[in-house]
Order: sequence, then structure tokens, then C-alpha cells
Amino acid sequence: MLFKKIYLDNGATTQVDERVLEAMNSYFNKKFGNASSTHDFGRDAKNSLEDARKIIAKSIGAKSGEIYFTSGGTESNNFAIKGIAFANKGKGNHIITTKVEHKCVLNSCKWLEKQGFEVSYLDVDGEGFVDANDLENEIRKETILVSIIHGNNEIGAIQKLEELGKICRENKVYFHTDACQSYTKTGLEVNKQNLDLVTLNSHKIHGPKGVGALYIREGTKIEPWQHGGGQEKDFRSGTENISGIVGFAEAVKIAMDEKHVEQMNFLTKKLIKGVLKIQGTRLNGSMKERLCNNANFSFSKVEGEAIGGYLDQKGICSSTGSACSEMNLEPSYVLKAIGLSDEQANGSLRLTLSRFTTEKEIDYVLKVLPGIIKKLRRFSPL
Amino acid sequence: MLFKKIYLDNGATTQVDERVLEAMNSYFNKKFGNASSTHDFGRDAKNSLEDARKIIAKSIGAKSGEIYFTSGGTESNNFAIKGIAFANKGKGNHIITTKVEHKCVLNSCKWLEKQGFEVSYLDVDGEGFVDANDLENEIRKETILVSIIHGNNEIGAIQKLEELGKICRENKVYFHTDACQSYTKTGLEVNKQNLDLVTLNSHKIHGPKGVGALYIREGTKIEPWQHGGGQEKDFRSGTENISGIVGFAEAVKIAMDEKHVEQMNFLTKKLIKGVLKIQGTRLNGSMKERLCNNANFSFSKVEGEAIGGYLDQKGICSSTGSACSEMNLEPSYVLKAIGLSDEQANGSLRLTLSRFTTEKEIDYVLKVLPGIIKKLRRFSPL
Repeated sequence: MLFKKIYLDNGATTQVDERVLEAMNSYFNKKFGNASSTHDFGRDAKNSLEDARKIIAKSIGAKSGEIYFTSGGTESNNFAIKGIAFANKGKGNHIITTKVEHKCVLNSCKWLEKQGFEVSYLDVDGEGFVDANDLENEIRKETILVSIIHGNNEIGAIQKLEELGKICRENKVYFHTDACQSYTKTGLEVNKQNLDLVTLNSHKIHGPKGVGALYIREGTKIEPWQHGGGQEKDFRSGTENISGIVGFAEAVKIAMDEKHVEQMNFLTKKLIKGVLKIQGTRLNGSMKERLCNNANFSFSKVEGEAIGGYLDQKGICSSTGSACSEMNLEPSYVLKAIGLSDEQANGSLRLTLSRFTTEKEIDYVLKVLPGIIKKLRRFSPL
Repeated sequence: MLFKKIYLDNGATTQVDERVLEAMNSYFNKKFGNASSTHDFGRDAKNSLEDARKIIAKSIGAKSGEIYFTSGGTESNNFAIKGIAFANKGKGNHIITTKVEHKCVLNSCKWLEKQGFEVSYLDVDGEGFVDANDLENEIRKETILVSIIHGNNEIGAIQKLEELGKICRENKVYFHTDACQSYTKTGLEVNKQNLDLVTLNSHKIHGPKGVGALYIREGTKIEPWQHGGGQEKDFRSGTENISGIVGFAEAVKIAMDEKHVEQMNFLTKKLIKGVLKIQGTRLNGSMKERLCNNANFSFSKVEGEAIGGYLDQKGICSSTGSACSEMNLEPSYVLKAIGLSDEQANGSLRLTLSRFTTEKEIDYVLKVLPGIIKKLRRFSPL
């Protein structure tokens, strides 16, 4: 890459903060021990692991012993959903989730359906929100788990966890949320929000890839999903990725500073306001309950893929839908769930900011995007 | 740590090679894209991912498309065993493994027993070897998988994969090996050795922690075990840990140089010869078919834990059994399987070398160890 790119695909992944990299550095070839070893190297690793656990626990109002490290958000979601399902099949075989979850939740649920579980997929409204009454109506005596995404990865809708969690608590059903996109970007407090399981990850908040965590409330009946040497109190085996975990914790420490959220919020609002001036444009998701770094638009009579291509030529990295679904060309199921037509869904563009995004970059996007849309519409067969 | 330690616990984990760290470095905050993204950052990540895949495939005589990246050896073993089990339960429910596997294989099998599978655990002889006739006799028409460790993590015994694999092939049963300890240290060739699935990992060969791979022979019927966005051809979802994968591949490239193996072999032999001069000492495992970096001894009338403690004071990092079983104080099941008494098993010490181990370090161990054993025996109640 010859010139500096404008990276607006932070919903897919983020750059690692220099301070995070520095924190990780000595764990590769100096303090490189296996946390299960009893000699000095092992003890050093173990101490660093427990320090990291405390930082992450504190960030969501949890106890240190309730944080279990994993290889990332996808593993945490798989572990939470399958682990609860297998541990509680004596009680029931019914799981509730929504139509706007990340694929790792949906595909874990689909796999469980093949194993004899039943899954209800809740609808959402036009802005992407789950109706608390719908949830309440769907719970039955066989229900063992409710899994609802916190901040949506495509349209940024932030669900009312507190209200939804209260319903789960009253009905004695475990409540899990996938907080991969929302973590450090909006309030996440396990007790206030009645959460039993929370998926967290590192690479969306300027930490390294390949590391994440699952919060599991003390006393939760869950089956380990990765078996082995008994690490993480026997709930998640495998040699702990200490450098990754230390980097993750450092990323959390930095990200918890509220000024970052304010800054992203300001720039995202400016971007949304500017883009909506282009005729035939709609904002997908809510204006109000929205992740501070997410903007998602549909442009009539234009393919999102084409917009992305032109933006790329101008040095701007964007995405259509979520990066995880780039591999198929189906219109986004999230956008379909909020009521968009195939044409509207295919004309969508996601721009996701980070704390490294500058006002100058946003101004540049606002300068070039109208011309791209205009040009594409001129050639559009639609 | 105030002075330079002598690290002889490379079976637990290894230091990351400087060249590996350098290879990884730009992937944290320069080429940090999500390999599923379609813009420049994504394409860069994707290219690096495929380059790494080629290097690893080549190292075991596999095709590039047969390598699937995971979070490490534990995940690969879980994936291989459970993935084959669930995909082939229509054919049968019987699995064969051995009594000397790593805990992640044994505990995956134990979990499968709870799901209705039947598992046979083969005995080994006094040096840790599986008898090919035992394997052949155990195979029945319901057998779907044989999983046998390549190089044992505790006693270094290298199984005759080619012979064992041939039996599996003739009986049309999938053959999996856990090669975490043997990879790059002794011959691993998927076609010659009739392997269908091979577990590989990075942090035992001076690569980073948190990354590994599973070789899956083309056409193998296996179920994905981590569901989600469809990465790794839908067999292992989750955003690819590019920096880790690039580091892993670099570690493989360096480790494939045969001179490292020769050097480790020379020093290990010297260590073994020297330690066996101490009265009442036995070598666990075979002298001949042994990993080039593994030495495992039992000292009569002494606790291994105590030896480890005294060595630690002298600046030498060792282990008793494998690091993964440090958490419990049971005598090693591997040492029990080769016929040791509880006392012999508890008096064991594992010293595992790396290419960074020097002759001076080995000489130092040989200088201090006899005195430690002598002192401990003097106070021994046994």
C-alpha cells in the first residue's frame, strides 16, 4: 500500500495499539513460560494471566474468577451456547435467540438443532430491536438459554439488555449476550443487566487477534467445550496465550477511557448527517441507540459492492454488511430482518470508525462519496 | 528473574524466536486487516494467510488446502476427534486411542463416551510403544477413528506411525496423530505415514502461543467444530489470527533445518548418559526411538517435585511429568502405563531441550544434579 489508507472497517477488525504491542512484547521471548509450570517462568506467566483477568473482570463489574479466556469471540459464543445446551438438556431443549445475531451464534444454534435442540429466532423491528414482550411470550418451561447480541455488528443497534435480562432472570433462564462489538463502547455491567454469560473479544478494540473471553456467572451450569489439561479451572483447556491475554487486558484498560467513545460518537454523527444529505439514502438501524462507531446506509439503485470498490480506489476501506459474510453474495440477513428489500440490502455500505479515525478522514469521505454514488447511479441498470 | 535461567522445560512451551517475532511484527498495526475483508487490508491478510498455509503444508508433505488453522494443539485435537466422531456416527461409534495420550485427547474421548461413543484405550509396552497387533485386534466394524500420539510429551517415545497407519488404512478407519511434540523434530509425512488427520502447534517450536493447525486429508468426512462466519472453508470459523499464523509459519521454516535436530540429539544423549551415572536412576522411555529433546528419569527414593524445587533454586527450569498435569498431584498416568510404581512415577523428572540449549547448560545440570539427589536421599523417608 503506497499511501495512507482511511480505514473505516473497524467493525471487522482494528489495528493493535502501540501501547498494547509494547505490553505484549516481553511475553514472547522473555516472560514466555507456560502458566501451568511451577518454576519461575511459569509463575510469572500465571501472575500476568491473573492480573489480566482482574482488569477484564473489573471492566464489566464481574468477579475475577468469572472470566474465562478463549481464542476469540467466535469460540466464546460457541462455548456459551453449546456449553449451556449440553449441560442443561436435562431441564429442557429450547433456546431463544434473534434473527440478527452474528453467524457464530446462528450457526451454533443450527448445529444444536441437528442435535435435538429447538431454537426460536426472534424477529426485530425496523431499527433492529427485539421486543421484550416477544421474548417473554417465547419463553416456555423447556427454555434453557436466551442469547441476544448487545451491539449489532452490521447496523449498530444496541439492545436493552437490562430489560431483556430481567425477563430471563424472572423466568430462571440463562441470559447470554455477544458483546464483541459493544465492549468498551457502551455500558456493559453484568449485575445491572442481569447477564449470566458475556462474549468479549480483543481484536475489535485494538488488541491482538486470537484472544477473547467468556464471562460466566458464578454457579452457572455449563459444560466445558474444549477438553484437555484443565486450564481455566477445567472449563477451557489449552495452554494460555499469555502475550495475547496481556495485550487484550492492556487494550481494555486504554479503551475504557470515555473520551474515546465521545470522539467516535461525534465523528459518526457527523458522517451520518453528511451522508444522509445524498438523495435516496437511508440510515439502517437506529439514530439513538446506536454503537458510537457504526454507520450503515442503503443507497437506492446502487450496489454496495460497487461503492466499496470505488471507495477502495480512493483509499477508503469500507464493507458491505459484515466482513464475515463477505464470502457469500446473499443480501445481508440482518438488513432483511429489519425489513429491507433485496435491492435495499444489496445497496448497503457499512463504515465503522475507531478512536484512530480523524475528522479530516470523515471530511474526505463526505467529499468523495456523493460523486461515487452519482456516477454509479448514472450507469445503474436498476 | 535476576540472572539467566537455564530453561529445560521446552516440552511445556518455548521462547519465540527473534526472527519469528520480526515476521509477526507488521501484522499487528500495519497489515492488520481481516482476511475476509475485500479491501487492500483484507487482501494483504488473505495473501499472508495462504503463504503460511503453503509453508506448513509443505513441511508435512500435504496439500495447502488440507491445512486448517486453529488456536492450538488442544483445539486441533478436540476438533479432530469430536469432528470425526459426530460426522461418522452413522457408520459406527467406536474410537481407539492409547493410555499415553495428552489429556486433551483423553478428555475429548471421555466426553464422547458420555455422548454414546465407545472408546478403547490401548496399553503400551515398558518403553511406551503401542503394539501394532493390539491395534489390529481392537479394530471392529464400528470403529471410526484411531488416535495415537506421535512423540510422547512425557517420555518422548516416537510411535511407528507408518505401520500403525497402514493397519488403519487397510481397515478403512481414519487415523489421527497428535504431533505437537514431534513436529519438526522427527519425520512427519502424511502420505508415507498413512495419516488422515494431524495436530500441529506453534508454541512448542519457538512460534507464538494461541495458534496451531489441523491437517485434514482431502475427502475426510469431518464435522466443523467451531461454527460461525465460515472461515477456513467453513471448517473452523473465527477471524484468522494472522500475526500468529505468520509467526507459526516462520517458526516452521526455521525449525525444518535438520542441524537443530542433530544438535538437540547430541545434547540430550549427553544429558541422559551423564544422569544415568547417578545410582538408582532409570531412563523412562526408549533410548532409540526418542524425541531429540526429551529426557525423562526416575530417581529412586526421591520426590520429583523436590528435585524440581532444588533445580529451580539453582536456576534450572524442569518439570515433573507434563506441565499440563502440574495441577494435580496424582502420579503421571503415562509413567504408570509403562509399568512404573507410584514411587517411581513420583520420583520422575523431565528435562526438555530446545535449539537454544547450550552444552554449557547441560554440563551445569550434570554438575549440580548428583548433589541434589544425594542430599534429597539423605532426608528421604522412603
